[in-house]
Amino acid sequence: MSDHVVAGFPASLPLHELDPLPPGAEPVPVDPATVSDGELARIEFLVPPGRASLGLLARMPALRVIQTLSAGVDWLAGHVPDGVRVCNAAGVYDTPLAEWTLAAILAVLRGFPAADAAQRRSAWERFEPEELLDRHVVILGYGSIGRAVEDRLAPFGARISRVGRTGRPGVLGVDALDGILPSTEVLVVLLPLARTTVGLLDRRRLGLLPPGALVVNAGRGRVIDTAALRDDVGAGRLRAALDVVDPEPLPSDDPLWRMPGALITPHVAGDTAAAEKRAIRLAADQLRRYAAGDEMRNEVPSYLLEQLDPA
Amino acid sequence: MSDHVVAGFPASLPLHELDPLPPGAEPVPVDPATVSDGELARIEFLVPPGRASLGLLARMPALRVIQTLSAGVDWLAGHVPDGVRVCNAAGVYDTPLAEWTLAAILAVLRGFPAADAAQRRSAWERFEPEELLDRHVVILGYGSIGRAVEDRLAPFGARISRVGRTGRPGVLGVDALDGILPSTEVLVVLLPLARTTVGLLDRRRLGLLPPGALVVNAGRGRVIDTAALRDDVGAGRLRAALDVVDPEPLPSDDPLWRMPGALITPHVAGDTAAAEKRAIRLAADQLRRYAAGDEMRNEVPSYLLEQLDPA
Repeated sequence: MSDHVVAGFPASLPLHELDPLPPGAEPVPVDPATVSDGELARIEFLVPPGRASLGLLARMPALRVIQTLSAGVDWLAGHVPDGVRVCNAAGVYDTPLAEWTLAAILAVLRGFPAADAAQRRSAWERFEPEELLDRHVVILGYGSIGRAVEDRLAPFGARISRVGRTGRPGVLGVDALDGILPSTEVLVVLLPLARTTVGLLDRRRLGLLPPGALVVNAGRGRVIDTAALRDDVGAGRLRAALDVVDPEPLPSDDPLWRMPGALITPHVAGDTAAAEKRAIRLAADQLRRYAAGDEMRNEVPSYLLEQLDPA
Repeated sequence: MSDHVVAGFPASLPLHELDPLPPGAEPVPVDPATVSDGELARIEFLVPPGRASLGLLARMPALRVIQTLSAGVDWLAGHVPDGVRVCNAAGVYDTPLAEWTLAAILAVLRGFPAADAAQRRSAWERFEPEELLDRHVVILGYGSIGRAVEDRLAPFGARISRVGRTGRPGVLGVDALDGILPSTEVLVVLLPLARTTVGLLDRRRLGLLPPGALVVNAGRGRVIDTAALRDDVGAGRLRAALDVVDPEPLPSDDPLWRMPGALITPHVAGDTAAAEKRAIRLAADQLRRYAAGDEMRNEVPSYLLEQLDPA
C-alpha cells in the first residue's frame, strides 16, 4: 500500500457511485480498447473490466491487487501475475442467486414452464403440480450463496443436505456425492469452477440421480458435462434449470433450448441493479482498506486461480 | 351424531384412502348423475362431489354436516339447508398455495416469463431481473394460508404487511387498504369470496397501486375486478400472477392470456397429490369426530355462506 493509490475501474462503471473515495485514491477509468501503457503502468489496484482486461495484466508492473466485481474468478485463472492478490465479490450475489435458485426450483416443481406453454395457446389446461415440501434437496457448494439458498429453503420443509468441496462439520465432502445422488430430488449446483470441479457432474454421476430429479445450476456451466445433461433431459429422465451453461452463450441450435424439461436463463441470476450497487460499494471499501493498510476481505484461495486447462 | 353414520363421498374418490374408517360409519359413494333418492335420504355426513352436488342437497333430509375437500366454500353459499353445518378443508392447501405464491412472485420478479419467451426462440437475451429483498409485500387475507406465505417470505427480507377482513393485533383491517396500496409492490390476494370481498379490488383500489406493482391472486377471481385488472396489465401499469380469474376457465379470447405482464395458471395451485391425500385424511378424521360426538374442526363462519348475488 502507499499514500497515493492509483485504482483502475471499468470505464463503463458509474464512478460517482464510488463516492466517497478513500483519501489518496486516484480512480482511473480503464477501457481495454484505448487505455495507454502509461496509464496502465501506474495502476496498483484494479477492478478489471471483464475478460477483455486479461491482456492488460502483463502491461501493469505496479499492479498489486485485483478486486473483481464477480463472485467467480475462473476467468482470471492462469492470467494473474506473480505477487498479485485477487479478491472476489463474495457476498454480493448471495441474495440474487439464492432468489433465482428458489424461483427456478419452484417454477419447475409448480409446472410453470408447461403453464406458460398453455398460456401462449390461450388454453386453460389443468395439470398436477408438485410440492417442494419433504423433497430431498442437495446443495452442492456450500459457501455464502449456499447458506443463502438454505435460509430461503428452510421454511418450505424440504430435507436439505449440504455438500462442499471438502467435508466439515455439517457439510459432506464431494467424496460423499456418489452415496447421496441416488436419493437427490433437487440438486443445486453452486460450486466455483476450478481444476477440482470442472466436469465434476459427469455422465456417471448424473446417471446416479433418480428419474425426475431436477438439476439446478447457478454456479458455472463447466461443472456439469453439458452433453450428458442434454441427453438425460432430452430423454425425459432428468429436468434442468440452468442460469449457466457450457458454452455461453448457448448456441441457438442447441437442442436444450427446445426441451420441455429445461428452463434456461441467460446467466443473469446475479445481474440485479441492487447487486451491481453492492459490488461497487464493496470495491470502494476494498480500495479504502488497501489504501489504509487494513486487512482486505474476500481474498480467493490459490486453487481457484490455477489454470484450468494446462497445455 | 349417532351410532351409525351414513357418509356420502364423491364416487371419484379413492375410498381405500379413507381407511381406517371410524366404527359405525358407512361410506356411500355419491355420483350426482346416478345417486338415488333412497340413498340420498340416508346420508347424514356429506363430502360433496363439487358443484354438481348442489342440486342434491334439497333431497337430503338426514343431512347434518357438509365437509368440503376445498378451502373455499363460496360455491356452497346460498345452497346450504337450514340446520346443516359446513366445515371446510382449511389447512390442507396451506403448503401448495404458499408454494405457488412464492413461485409466482419470484418467477415474475426474476423475469422468467420473458426468459421463457426468449428460450422458445433459442435466444440468449440478457435482461435485468429484480430482487425480492426489501420489496413491500402486502398479504391480503391473513388466515392459515397467509401465515404459510409469510413463513416462506420471511427469509427473503421482504417488508411484509398483513391485511385481514377485520383488523386485529398485528393485522390491519380492510379499511386500512386505501392507505397501504400506494406503497405496495407485491399484493398477495388470499381472501375468500364473500359478500364483503366480491369486487373488493375494484378499479379505484387497483388504481392506488404504484406503477409496476405485481398483483398475485391465489384466492378467488371475483375478489378482483377482472376488467379493471386487464386494463392496467394491458397498459403495462400493473403486472399480475393469477391462479384464479373471473370467469373460470378464462375464455380463450381474453386478452389477458397474451399480455406479457400476466402469468396465468389454471386454478391448480392447490392441486397437488399431497394436498388431495391431506384432504381425504381430514374428511375421514372429521367423520370420526362427528361419529364420536367430538368437536369438529374448520366449521366456517356464516358470512361465508351468505348468497353472493341476492336476487
